[in-house]
Amino acid sequence: MLSEFDLIARFKKILPQSLFRDWTVSIGDDCAVRRLSRNRYELLTQDLLLEDVHFLSGSLRHWEEIGWKSLAVNLSDLAAMGGRPVGAVIGLALPSAAKTSEAEALYRGLAAAARRYACPVVGGDTNASKGAWMIAISMLGETRHRPLLRSAARSGDSLWVSGELGTAALGWRAIQRQDRSALAAPFRRRHALPEPRLAWGEKLAQSGMVGAMIDVSDGLAGDLAHLEKASKVGFEVELENLPRHRDFSKLCSRLDVSEVEMQLAGGEDYELLFTVQAGLEKKFQKFAAVHGLKVTCIGNAVKNRGIHWLQGGRNVKKSFRGFRHF
Amino acid sequence: MLSEFDLIARFKKILPQSLFRDWTVSIGDDCAVRRLSRNRYELLTQDLLLEDVHFLSGSLRHWEEIGWKSLAVNLSDLAAMGGRPVGAVIGLALPSAAKTSEAEALYRGLAAAARRYACPVVGGDTNASKGAWMIAISMLGETRHRPLLRSAARSGDSLWVSGELGTAALGWRAIQRQDRSALAAPFRRRHALPEPRLAWGEKLAQSGMVGAMIDVSDGLAGDLAHLEKASKVGFEVELENLPRHRDFSKLCSRLDVSEVEMQLAGGEDYELLFTVQAGLEKKFQKFAAVHGLKVTCIGNAVKNRGIHWLQGGRNVKKSFRGFRHF
Repeated sequence: MLSEFDLIARFKKILPQSLFRDWTVSIGDDCAVRRLSRNRYELLTQDLLLEDVHFLSGSLRHWEEIGWKSLAVNLSDLAAMGGRPVGAVIGLALPSAAKTSEAEALYRGLAAAARRYACPVVGGDTNASKGAWMIAISMLGETRHRPLLRSAARSGDSLWVSGELGTAALGWRAIQRQDRSALAAPFRRRHALPEPRLAWGEKLAQSGMVGAMIDVSDGLAGDLAHLEKASKVGFEVELENLPRHRDFSKLCSRLDVSEVEMQLAGGEDYELLFTVQAGLEKKFQKFAAVHGLKVTCIGNAVKNRGIHWLQGGRNVKKSFRGFRHF
Repeated sequence: MLSEFDLIARFKKILPQSLFRDWTVSIGDDCAVRRLSRNRYELLTQDLLLEDVHFLSGSLRHWEEIGWKSLAVNLSDLAAMGGRPVGAVIGLALPSAAKTSEAEALYRGLAAAARRYACPVVGGDTNASKGAWMIAISMLGETRHRPLLRSAARSGDSLWVSGELGTAALGWRAIQRQDRSALAAPFRRRHALPEPRLAWGEKLAQSGMVGAMIDVSDGLAGDLAHLEKASKVGFEVELENLPRHRDFSKLCSRLDVSEVEMQLAGGEDYELLFTVQAGLEKKFQKFAAVHGLKVTCIGNAVKNRGIHWLQGGRNVKKSFRGFRHF
């Protein structure tokens, strides 16, 4: 069997291309984009979450978290284009052994995220499955600004990321190791209840200074590779500049995990990774401060293709791959 | 575990209702409906197809049929509101034992339906599954006419259906019995490659004479019950008037199956079931003839709630339930 990305490339060739006239972006970005009218764009995205692949079954509390996360990961795709949510449909396949209380807990979590991010759930499909739980969410969004694509990075742009990297991945390790300490609590919480950066994404689109954008779902290394490929530029990243939770090093050391691995290949950060057009760094920094965007400059787009990791300004040989489903 | 419909009712209570301001229709019809501007409505629908529940694995030819059908059942939901397709996203969960050739065959079938019905596939999500195949399709549509809802039937309206009933269900029996005769061929084909009534649905919305509409996916009895419930009216249906393929009785008798059961509870017809406003039957019949719509009047909406089956004008006691997923 081919990899996920190779399969998608094959599918793209099989599918008819001539029908895309209404769509300015289709397969290959965080969302498909359709222009509704002048200055009004519609966004469409979909994510599948599969039991034993993306989540494990557990307590009712845990089912609520799965519900929240299912909606949050789709919302993060909208955030990555600078959009706001318009509505979602939820497809749910339930194994015959599923309990009504579990399905209800899942929906309570979905409802909590729907309320928090003002995203109505307007329909869907519910089915008995002969196998595992499966949640398929499709989400519509809109934006009044030019959507921020993966392909818009240019050599000379600066590279930025929102929030912190590695927090959720480290939280997952803490959960696996059953570390219930106060130190680990914010990490565990970030893993269980990710917060899509919708408000920040909209502000970034509004700024007019951002080039390319993507959300960090598979880890910085994996998602930066998508920007690299779509924009046809290279990137230099200074590892010492990667933003981290203030207790990050302490917990990494306690759980005996690699800091760099958590930050680059951990996944599930759901932060925004984006470029700022060359020469606008200072102006952008002011804009971010005024609007309360927590963002960090971590590197630059360069002509030399590939991803070049620096430590204290010197190249280090590292090869990190994002989370892959195959 | 509760039934599919009871679960949906519970979910509806859990989900926040206050967010629906943009949506004129949400959970409980064939599509959710959002008004984009004056005389411009957007439709959103989703269907899951699960291996061993909705389809069985098979030959490459068979995988192409599954691909076609996956898109067709969603297109039928658009047809049921009078809409035309705008774009679809395809979520695919593939078991580890799946072959690339099978996934490609599935996509060839999807692509054939996409071309035939001018529906671009603009994105999706592909994942490895630890269990069975699963296809989750979400589809966007639009209409410039008032969308045709399930709730718009009024006592005194006449009840109509497009095409024929029971053809696909009988085709499925022929496939199960390995009947490869010329007699069975059109029935088998209708089961394998359903034809959503998009063009007819648009014409019906355009006519201005249609009240309620739904597509017949679970069988006439099951889907008429949805109209009954949503519109709060009863229906009288004359069994002798149900449209059928010219070889329907012959093949039913050869396969030794009940004609009434195939027509009422068989499912997968993907025809349109709709009401025409009282007093407009003659005018509607002319409209249908002019536009080449193959439609048959099969009964009336009445004050007396419930579904009343008639045979030669006399009430017959029959209780038919549509296909249920639980």
